[in-house]
Amino acid sequence: MLTTEPALRAFTQNVFLAMGCSAEHAALAADVLLLADLRGIDSHGVARLTGYVRLWEKQRINATPNIQIVHETPTTATIDGDSGLGLVVAPFAMKVAIEKAEKYGSGWIAIRNSNHFGIAGYHALMAVEKDMIGFAMTNASPLVAPTFSNERLLGTNPMCYAFPAGKHPAVVVDMATSAAANGKLEIAQRLGKQVPEGWIQDKNGDFTTDPHALKSGGSLLPLGSDREHGSHKGFGLSATVDILSAVLSGANYGPWVPPFVAFLEPPTDPVGKGIGHFLGAMRVDGFRPVDEFKHHLDNWIDRFKNASTINPNQKVIIPGEPELEAHADRIKNGIPIVDAVADDLNAVAKKLGVNSL
Amino acid sequence: MLTTEPALRAFTQNVFLAMGCSAEHAALAADVLLLADLRGIDSHGVARLTGYVRLWEKQRINATPNIQIVHETPTTATIDGDSGLGLVVAPFAMKVAIEKAEKYGSGWIAIRNSNHFGIAGYHALMAVEKDMIGFAMTNASPLVAPTFSNERLLGTNPMCYAFPAGKHPAVVVDMATSAAANGKLEIAQRLGKQVPEGWIQDKNGDFTTDPHALKSGGSLLPLGSDREHGSHKGFGLSATVDILSAVLSGANYGPWVPPFVAFLEPPTDPVGKGIGHFLGAMRVDGFRPVDEFKHHLDNWIDRFKNASTINPNQKVIIPGEPELEAHADRIKNGIPIVDAVADDLNAVAKKLGVNSL
Repeated sequence: MLTTEPALRAFTQNVFLAMGCSAEHAALAADVLLLADLRGIDSHGVARLTGYVRLWEKQRINATPNIQIVHETPTTATIDGDSGLGLVVAPFAMKVAIEKAEKYGSGWIAIRNSNHFGIAGYHALMAVEKDMIGFAMTNASPLVAPTFSNERLLGTNPMCYAFPAGKHPAVVVDMATSAAANGKLEIAQRLGKQVPEGWIQDKNGDFTTDPHALKSGGSLLPLGSDREHGSHKGFGLSATVDILSAVLSGANYGPWVPPFVAFLEPPTDPVGKGIGHFLGAMRVDGFRPVDEFKHHLDNWIDRFKNASTINPNQKVIIPGEPELEAHADRIKNGIPIVDAVADDLNAVAKKLGVNSL
Repeated sequence: MLTTEPALRAFTQNVFLAMGCSAEHAALAADVLLLADLRGIDSHGVARLTGYVRLWEKQRINATPNIQIVHETPTTATIDGDSGLGLVVAPFAMKVAIEKAEKYGSGWIAIRNSNHFGIAGYHALMAVEKDMIGFAMTNASPLVAPTFSNERLLGTNPMCYAFPAGKHPAVVVDMATSAAANGKLEIAQRLGKQVPEGWIQDKNGDFTTDPHALKSGGSLLPLGSDREHGSHKGFGLSATVDILSAVLSGANYGPWVPPFVAFLEPPTDPVGKGIGHFLGAMRVDGFRPVDEFKHHLDNWIDRFKNASTINPNQKVIIPGEPELEAHADRIKNGIPIVDAVADDLNAVAKKLGVNSL
């Protein structure tokens, strides 16, 4: 089906309200999910909404969390999300980071006891609006094997870096540290298509092109795919995300990260609380005047956009550009929702007494 | 030839003294290079020493720099390296980052007007010694093409993240954001061996296994190798390093970064000063007590070291482990220097009136 931004937003907000979220939290959580759908990152938008509801039904998500700072210095803090929606906990934490940056130049927040926070870009872009550089990362359910292992010990653990530009839109690097994001695998599964070699391995650690291999003991591969092509670097980046998000905050890390899907139980021997995030904000004018920075970032963007290309029809893509194009298109032409997702959403809505989409 | 740590250190220090460096700077610069040789990262150790000398001869490196903070907030600063050795400028900046972290929880320094800073790990480990998390990155001479381009616009732009552990050594993720570091290519060139597909492309943008392709208009590829395997992520990481190191500090970025080799002239239309770095330090106890963090990082390391493996003879490698093994081996058994490198070093030493190695 095809829906519109206002309709999808109202529907999403109503589902969160029916879960018992405050009006403020429901609007915020919907805003985070909607931005993913608008930016074309369908795997992190309303397609996940029923997943949040099922975790809430199992009392693994708290709809009325008491989000608190539990440890603090002028520029650092650890926040306990009280099992709240990451969609609400992360923006709370980012506000604290921004306040610290306003006072001291930078602010860095480790978050524990949270849940899936949607697209990392949403949180990093909160800093960009204040002429700051935004950082956002999170750990996630274990699906990725370290180099040389056939065991799923890491999530797709995304990192996001966002920079405010002048005449150009912000540069937003928002990427899973695995060779392919799980969302791409899900699309291949749905369409019954094979995936490229280098995305996943089977339970024996051999490359496979079967997108269903994860269900039979396979795993996603780190960025780089194999040792020869730098998978130890993808593993190192994913480890960095896990350590900053969870070892630093007191959340669960590695194989102890609770699964996003409600039908899998969390490990019975947790090493921390919930999942973890790490967010940061740095004032651009803590380093040089904002207009100077923006002028040079515009120049950087112009130079890369005009790089010599291999194929004349395929220009160099500035990080964040495709998402903005999707955003403009979907505001204008509507947001497509896969039928299976729409059916799932409407079934959950019915159960909660919410008008269907 | 095989040399020892004290002999190589004395030799290196003498070369820097002969360039006119102060005793303190010569000892520090030698310390940075030696750590690379000890850790087995030969491409970043004394093999580069004659390169620094040649840049100094061309007056592109200033042996007696006046390194200064030019912009500052409580937790951020921009430092101008006055064309000094990066080997000296970066540790100066890291000290400032650590002082800020001691006072405010974190410290972040953008550096311009610098030169090659050796291994990123040296600088990040300065923070680890203080129970802080260390960050270090630098841009570098353009050798890497963005996804879809055949133009060399980025350096191998390394990122380093270092974390203090308890019973285990520090976790040190220190990696070029290209599929393969330039040093690996140089080894293949020297041995006349082909390189794996996915490391480099020829001037038309086709994969090639010829390690000499860079000399005829080819380029290194970002981590991920091609779009299908996530090279846009390697490009995004490299862009992040370039923007933080240079657009933020006022150094040269992208294709304007001056080449490391003295026989190539820097661009005549610079967009900033020298090359740029970005360094940071965050106090672990800004987030949770140090002993708690170390206990959990040890647990993280144990879990990953004991992961199920694909090949029983190849265990999972914790980032930083191979470098420590090399360090122990080279302290005990000596440091091997390739003959061509030794000859080059001794020729330069003779010219400077320094005793040969």
